[in-house]
Amino acid sequence: MKRYEILADELAAAIATGALPAGSRLPSVRAASIARGVSASTVFEAYYLLEARGLVRPRDRSGYYVLPRAARVPEPGLSRPAPGPTKVDVSDLVFDVLRATRQRDVVPFGSAFPSPLLFPWDQLGTALGRSARSVDPWRTVDDIGQGNVDLRTQIARRYALAGVALGADDLVITNGALEALNLCLGAVTRSGDAVVIESPCFYAALQAIERLDLRAVSVPTDPREGIDLAALERALHEEKPRACWVMSSFQNPLGSSMPTAKKRALVALLARHEVPLIEDDVYGELHFDRVRPPPAKAFDSAGLVLTCSSFSKTLAPGYRIGWAAPGRFAERVLRLKLTTSLSSAVPIQAALAAYLERGAYDRHLRHLRQSLAAQQASMLAAVQKHLPKGTRATRPEGGYFVWVELPDDVDALKLHRLALAEGISIAPGPMFSARRGFTHCVRLNYGHPWDLRAERAMATLGRLARSAHARAASGDAS
Amino acid sequence: MKRYEILADELAAAIATGALPAGSRLPSVRAASIARGVSASTVFEAYYLLEARGLVRPRDRSGYYVLPRAARVPEPGLSRPAPGPTKVDVSDLVFDVLRATRQRDVVPFGSAFPSPLLFPWDQLGTALGRSARSVDPWRTVDDIGQGNVDLRTQIARRYALAGVALGADDLVITNGALEALNLCLGAVTRSGDAVVIESPCFYAALQAIERLDLRAVSVPTDPREGIDLAALERALHEEKPRACWVMSSFQNPLGSSMPTAKKRALVALLARHEVPLIEDDVYGELHFDRVRPPPAKAFDSAGLVLTCSSFSKTLAPGYRIGWAAPGRFAERVLRLKLTTSLSSAVPIQAALAAYLERGAYDRHLRHLRQSLAAQQASMLAAVQKHLPKGTRATRPEGGYFVWVELPDDVDALKLHRLALAEGISIAPGPMFSARRGFTHCVRLNYGHPWDLRAERAMATLGRLARSAHARAASGDAS
Repeated sequence: MKRYEILADELAAAIATGALPAGSRLPSVRAASIARGVSASTVFEAYYLLEARGLVRPRDRSGYYVLPRAARVPEPGLSRPAPGPTKVDVSDLVFDVLRATRQRDVVPFGSAFPSPLLFPWDQLGTALGRSARSVDPWRTVDDIGQGNVDLRTQIARRYALAGVALGADDLVITNGALEALNLCLGAVTRSGDAVVIESPCFYAALQAIERLDLRAVSVPTDPREGIDLAALERALHEEKPRACWVMSSFQNPLGSSMPTAKKRALVALLARHEVPLIEDDVYGELHFDRVRPPPAKAFDSAGLVLTCSSFSKTLAPGYRIGWAAPGRFAERVLRLKLTTSLSSAVPIQAALAAYLERGAYDRHLRHLRQSLAAQQASMLAAVQKHLPKGTRATRPEGGYFVWVELPDDVDALKLHRLALAEGISIAPGPMFSARRGFTHCVRLNYGHPWDLRAERAMATLGRLARSAHARAASGDAS
Repeated sequence: MKRYEILADELAAAIATGALPAGSRLPSVRAASIARGVSASTVFEAYYLLEARGLVRPRDRSGYYVLPRAARVPEPGLSRPAPGPTKVDVSDLVFDVLRATRQRDVVPFGSAFPSPLLFPWDQLGTALGRSARSVDPWRTVDDIGQGNVDLRTQIARRYALAGVALGADDLVITNGALEALNLCLGAVTRSGDAVVIESPCFYAALQAIERLDLRAVSVPTDPREGIDLAALERALHEEKPRACWVMSSFQNPLGSSMPTAKKRALVALLARHEVPLIEDDVYGELHFDRVRPPPAKAFDSAGLVLTCSSFSKTLAPGYRIGWAAPGRFAERVLRLKLTTSLSSAVPIQAALAAYLERGAYDRHLRHLRQSLAAQQASMLAAVQKHLPKGTRATRPEGGYFVWVELPDDVDALKLHRLALAEGISIAPGPMFSARRGFTHCVRLNYGHPWDLRAERAMATLGRLARSAHARAASGDAS
């Protein structure tokens, strides 16, 4: 990340929080250059970038001023998926899209990952080198199955701070949250069972349902507060699902977060029906607010919540360390793990345990959250500025995705192909739907430092969307 | 491993190969002490250990002499499993046994792993530290799915040397061979399908069949030359299996290895029936002979062989790096990997690639093979010396397991429980059987440095087996 981008992000964050209110003047280039210890041209480039983002505007010769916050992009409403269970066959689409987003030279709005440049690689490398040289060889036997006890202890400690009473013994270390979620779903279902999911939902849930030959029951989901409990209750009565898979905080793709009371009610409702809740909490630590939202697991007195998370989005992408706290299904999950992958990499587990113990994680997380919040502000400003009138977008309080509803007649799959031809990836709505709905929606990733390339990509996306919209409006659907 | 154990193993290997023939005199303690640069007491302890193993005997005051090779333990014959498919339900037994073998203070005859002390941890740690500090953060995105291209290139190079034409693109890196095997079986079968296995076979195959709700078809297997092709052909006609899962070299638990011509015939036979062969080749590099036996994959012109292996038994236990070369099923395997675990740990892959590139692997393998060969000689001598008359045992030319047939009336499950009470684990025969057969057989692990504790454990095992045998013979089956 370049200096001017860092400076621009800091200023964007100050604007977003109100520390730099609308109408206020940015420091002069000279003053900022001295105060920051950067060159005048770095300050110029930062201000230019903020202007491009629609956050500030130069006025005559008197300097740059913070613009009044534009009328915000309106938010989308509650989803209305078709009721009843359905088989799922979404994998081909998901693979096609994901393959495209992994090209380094493509603008990664469609990516599932935050920028790898946001993580503390030097510190992790040091921890890994140290642990690799000092690790007890017998750990390769001890750590089979549940995983490194020091790491589990550190994870349990973090849960305790978030109000979740979990011991090291309650955790199973996995190869990322994806393995944890798949093991948990496999542990509580059998071929043909119905499983409740959000609408839209993370495509990995759809793929797991497809792989295990289950049926998906999509439940209306609010873009701000998550799955609709009244609709869920009806589905529990009518479809007798064997599991419910939910992201309770900063849901992918919506960014929705269930309020704490609603999480408690969700757990109670499912417990009354004896339905296990598979909770994907991988974004829980990426809150922009001061306090980590508790996972639904915090309210689990019946042992029916299987909460899953990882370090892949928060600390160490590619280290492939996740975990499950599977409640009363712990033994089943552990056995599935033992028969399918045995254990996770031993030196990696030891390194993360050592890193966490040194207490550097929270400092890193603060930086990461700040970056993500500033990047969200930039992206939403760009959405507002460039995407066609009638566009709606979510404003998540954490994570790194916004969910964008384009005008009804814009075909997101077509837009995806057109954008890709211009070197831009997006994640089209049908990827997140058991019935390939949300045909005019896209998920956009703001996990990457905002720069001119991103700004230009959003302008291109706007042009493509407007042109698709106009063509559709004029009846030319070719 | 202590010095006297290293010396004893070297001498045992020399005795096994005939370099020290029967009747020859070991060097005097003084001479050996000077020649080896070790203390006289180290030499004494080594000679004492060799005596305990039944390999040498002190004669008057003139020194230690190599004993004539005892009449070898006879080998077991072809297995005769019941024909026809069966559901499998062996997991509980397997978990019970494996849990016991993971206690550090238990003599690990029942373990599935070689001693972690046989691996080059310092070199691996250095490689890992270096790669962790220098790894390109974007690798966390690039390495998703198929895995690190440098590592795949190194693996493909080793295959080329073994006569298998594979490119880096043909390989998918996995979390150990266990994940590779499970992905491959999942990619070629659907619930209810029949799958051919060896008899006895590696319990992970049984567990995978159980997990995927498949049916097992056990085929007679020769303890020396592997699966019986005539019987396999009948099974192909009668049961129409959708896959065949075989360990063609140093099979677990038998130690059998199919001769090269038989491997070629196996591949041709399965190709005629269009049945995919899932080949578990994790022990292929642990040959005692000079040349690595080719995997069946070497003869695969139809793309029907899915060969799987790993570094877990040969280089880096606990690093959890394996791979599959799934032939025409590569895309399906890759997709299963992407939906269930996404990728393997990025710094670990880079570290192993760097280690392999430096060419230290073959030197390490030579040492490892020597250790295993010497340990096998010690264990077979102990089997001969301590187990009851009528015992049969395989003499594998690689790997680290022998398969022991005790007298018919010895109940291996009971023996397992009695032995465990004395701090000794064994792997009872029924773990390796779809129908819980092989009730009088055990698999013994010689992957650990042979020492007095092992020798005493074998004596205890002999005492327990003889007493079970006597009780059974006298009609007391309680």
